[in-house]
Amino acid sequence: MKKSLLALALFGAFAGVAQAQSAVVIYGNVDAGLIKRTNQTLNIGKRANNTLGFKGTEDLGSGLKAIFQVEMRYEPDSGTLEQGAGGVQRPTFQGQTRVGLESAAMGMIRIGRGLTAFQESSMAFEPFRGIPSPAAFQTDLMVAGYTSDPLGLPGNSTNRFSNALFYNSPVMSGFQVNTTIGTREANQGAVLIGRGTGAAPQYPANSLASANPFSITGTYKTAAVGVMLAYERNAVESTVRSVAAYVMLSPAIKLMGAITQHDQEHTRLINQDTTAWVLGANYTLGASKFIAGYGQKDPDGLNKVKQFSLGYEYSLSKRTYLYADLSNKKGAPAIAPATGTSINHYALGVNHSF
Amino acid sequence: MKKSLLALALFGAFAGVAQAQSAVVIYGNVDAGLIKRTNQTLNIGKRANNTLGFKGTEDLGSGLKAIFQVEMRYEPDSGTLEQGAGGVQRPTFQGQTRVGLESAAMGMIRIGRGLTAFQESSMAFEPFRGIPSPAAFQTDLMVAGYTSDPLGLPGNSTNRFSNALFYNSPVMSGFQVNTTIGTREANQGAVLIGRGTGAAPQYPANSLASANPFSITGTYKTAAVGVMLAYERNAVESTVRSVAAYVMLSPAIKLMGAITQHDQEHTRLINQDTTAWVLGANYTLGASKFIAGYGQKDPDGLNKVKQFSLGYEYSLSKRTYLYADLSNKKGAPAIAPATGTSINHYALGVNHSF
Amino acid sequence: MKKSLLALALFGAFAGVAQAQSAVVIYGNVDAGLIKRTNQTLNIGKRANNTLGFKGTEDLGSGLKAIFQVEMRYEPDSGTLEQGAGGVQRPTFQGQTRVGLESAAMGMIRIGRGLTAFQESSMAFEPFRGIPSPAAFQTDLMVAGYTSDPLGLPGNSTNRFSNALFYNSPVMSGFQVNTTIGTREANQGAVLIGRGTGAAPQYPANSLASANPFSITGTYKTAAVGVMLAYERNAVESTVRSVAAYVMLSPAIKLMGAITQHDQEHTRLINQDTTAWVLGANYTLGASKFIAGYGQKDPDGLNKVKQFSLGYEYSLSKRTYLYADLSNKKGAPAIAPATGTSINHYALGVNHSF
Repeated sequence: MKKSLLALALFGAFAGVAQAQSAVVIYGNVDAGLIKRTNQTLNIGKRANNTLGFKGTEDLGSGLKAIFQVEMRYEPDSGTLEQGAGGVQRPTFQGQTRVGLESAAMGMIRIGRGLTAFQESSMAFEPFRGIPSPAAFQTDLMVAGYTSDPLGLPGNSTNRFSNALFYNSPVMSGFQVNTTIGTREANQGAVLIGRGTGAAPQYPANSLASANPFSITGTYKTAAVGVMLAYERNAVESTVRSVAAYVMLSPAIKLMGAITQHDQEHTRLINQDTTAWVLGANYTLGASKFIAGYGQKDPDGLNKVKQFSLGYEYSLSKRTYLYADLSNKKGAPAIAPATGTSINHYALGVNHSF
Repeated sequence: MKKSLLALALFGAFAGVAQAQSAVVIYGNVDAGLIKRTNQTLNIGKRANNTLGFKGTEDLGSGLKAIFQVEMRYEPDSGTLEQGAGGVQRPTFQGQTRVGLESAAMGMIRIGRGLTAFQESSMAFEPFRGIPSPAAFQTDLMVAGYTSDPLGLPGNSTNRFSNALFYNSPVMSGFQVNTTIGTREANQGAVLIGRGTGAAPQYPANSLASANPFSITGTYKTAAVGVMLAYERNAVESTVRSVAAYVMLSPAIKLMGAITQHDQEHTRLINQDTTAWVLGANYTLGASKFIAGYGQKDPDGLNKVKQFSLGYEYSLSKRTYLYADLSNKKGAPAIAPATGTSINHYALGVNHSF
Repeated sequence: MKKSLLALALFGAFAGVAQAQSAVVIYGNVDAGLIKRTNQTLNIGKRANNTLGFKGTEDLGSGLKAIFQVEMRYEPDSGTLEQGAGGVQRPTFQGQTRVGLESAAMGMIRIGRGLTAFQESSMAFEPFRGIPSPAAFQTDLMVAGYTSDPLGLPGNSTNRFSNALFYNSPVMSGFQVNTTIGTREANQGAVLIGRGTGAAPQYPANSLASANPFSITGTYKTAAVGVMLAYERNAVESTVRSVAAYVMLSPAIKLMGAITQHDQEHTRLINQDTTAWVLGANYTLGASKFIAGYGQKDPDGLNKVKQFSLGYEYSLSKRTYLYADLSNKKGAPAIAPATGTSINHYALGVNHSF
């Protein structure tokens, strides 16, 4: 009897599921809430990305593993794929598509499409952990308005390389080096006039990159402190450099800051340099997490952008939390009339991971 | 030995699969068959929707659960996403994208996109269980030609709210209340001239809703009878009200009927009111299920639409059945020449759930 | 204690996973590498298809099974769906969407969309197992430039039938018959002028097929030899016939060859006939697999196409291998200037199945 139960248990676990599926982990999250922004009706939208992903690891022996990860993105309020500017639908597997090898001794090498080393490393130094909400700082002030993909499809995300190799070194005494390098292949980008003219744009439609885009970060992390140095150059040879750090005053209190400089001299005659800085704090108290951030972005010769944000998260479990944000951003977009703008943003919602 | 087997069983179940995946249930179905309609060549198509979904439940303690569900839709004859009128591809997660909380005491609240309370509740009172086949009544006569999404993307499904909150009360002594309320945000709709003119349409392209769309149903269900009262108003302030009931004469025999009224006075000067009714019967005999339905739709001042349908399902198992339908519909589309039309529909196929 | 562990194991295996998911197997692969072609920059791309699929089997008793399979395709270098000519995105479930019944005694019948009998059967006789890499022969020389879907959406794959029935006989003494037959329904194809004129094309846009497309193969396979006879006619009544064979000189050495003839007289006044042949060899040595192939395609009255390819695969495990290819193709495209072309192709990458 016991034997057959055991057989049944093993059969259930291994024949039906493990053999077929143990290689694949399904993961993701749904994030949706009420959003009110200045001059907009009450909307339903997201705060964090919404993902549905598939990943796996295969032990190749001798400490070597094969790894893969493909990740869909979607908008829970409309059921569409993740949308970029102008309602453009992004790639079906917008999150990432990567395959590679990993070992504790040699690190991880992957090929495909994903966040660049800079975009991925910087998230740990942003008070909202890098979510794309307008209340957070990642997609604008944290990167000083820089884009990693200027020649990609219009509406594409601005923090990924397509056609790239990704290398992450092992963590040695807290130090890690992360690099991403892309090919120069064309990627269906729109015209980018740059230093050219409408008739002879610097980058015509579907241009090759004028140099290999690459990204490199060095990080040092302990339980008490973290530091990041980062440098990235995109397909139109804009560059971004960033220094960031955090300090854990206690396990519950994290203070962080980042300074980022963006250089567009390869494609601009004026307004070439942008400097931005962000300060943030996280305070965890039981199931509650309090988030605060303030930052400025100063494009040379244009309006300064100032953003102040407060966030609150209440964990119902390890996988589910409620959130409330309020934020004010002045002067955006960077190239705005001298009067500037002031946009308030309020959000109230739920995030569930699976 | 037994211990290691146990450990293996536990490891297999929990380390490899349960921790990673017990949160996610993959479900769906494939439905495909041969279809012959008047004046069309023999086609291959579907009878029911084709779904591939991911859902899960997380126990938050104290009877509270976090729930999510995201559902893709596709066309098995062509491999594309579900297509609406004119071959338009619907959202990738056309079925639904919702996240929320549930408890036995307080009911279920969700946010995202899905069927409205009316569209979902009415299916139990339709002889074909609400499938979108032309042989069934759900998408036209059951709702008196009403659409829940008049300002959505052209080709979108007509029975969902995007950007909505969904609340289902607990079932108390057989009674349940279900409500859906949408925001007024714009949803990339086409121009709707309505009471305006071509130059000044009542709803220009990408209009905001002129009022919050909402849907509410009250249902009472026992093993022997079911009753539904429903009211819904869409984004252009058309309304629909419906009364429906079923009686189980025996566990094998279900008789059902519904009367629905659709009021378009907010967007029409004439032909404002449409009344429709549907009668149906299901008879289950062993693995066989017989389905019959008859209904009429009477748009004020336009042709009456009359539909008669017979269906047969033969279950090969709990998850797989074969089906055969025949149906005749006269007078459709509602706004048709006085001569009317008569379309026969025959279908023969298979439905497999997983 | 043991009992509760058992209960836990069973609960974990059956309640959380097996009941919900044992019906669904998730499978797929990621294939990405560096590609260099004559007159192109170094690219990142694929060698084999990239798939994410869901399939399952249900035992219906008496040896009968219900089966389904739906398969997404994607490009790992950009995260998009699989792209055809001109960057056109193919259907979301490009791989296949099929449902059907199977028994050891009667064979397998399926309905939906997938590879035709000819396209599927011929892969076993191609040195690269039918992968779509330009280094391989499947998509051009193996089929003598034939397309199975001339009236499908532009950019669609050329080896599938939409709207089809698929029957595979049981294997009897090594013999098997495989057939595919499609309906004549229109499939959003572009204009095909054929024997008509621009003003009166032989097949206007979105034409019905002029005859039911069908495909039939007979195969005979043992451990030592394999033979295939194939005949297929597409929606514009082009036909293809093929004879192929392989011999296993030893378990490690496979030699193979195929001759294929393509007849386009229904849509062409000249250049109606194309003949092609491919010879190939596989040699397996431990974890290494060596691949060689040579072929010619000879379109009546046009340039001859000649292709020579070498491939190498090194298995890191049963599911992961590295590969390196080099190939030269002369004279392509078939309708090319008399000078012809010569394109070298080099690839180096990794393929991981899950």
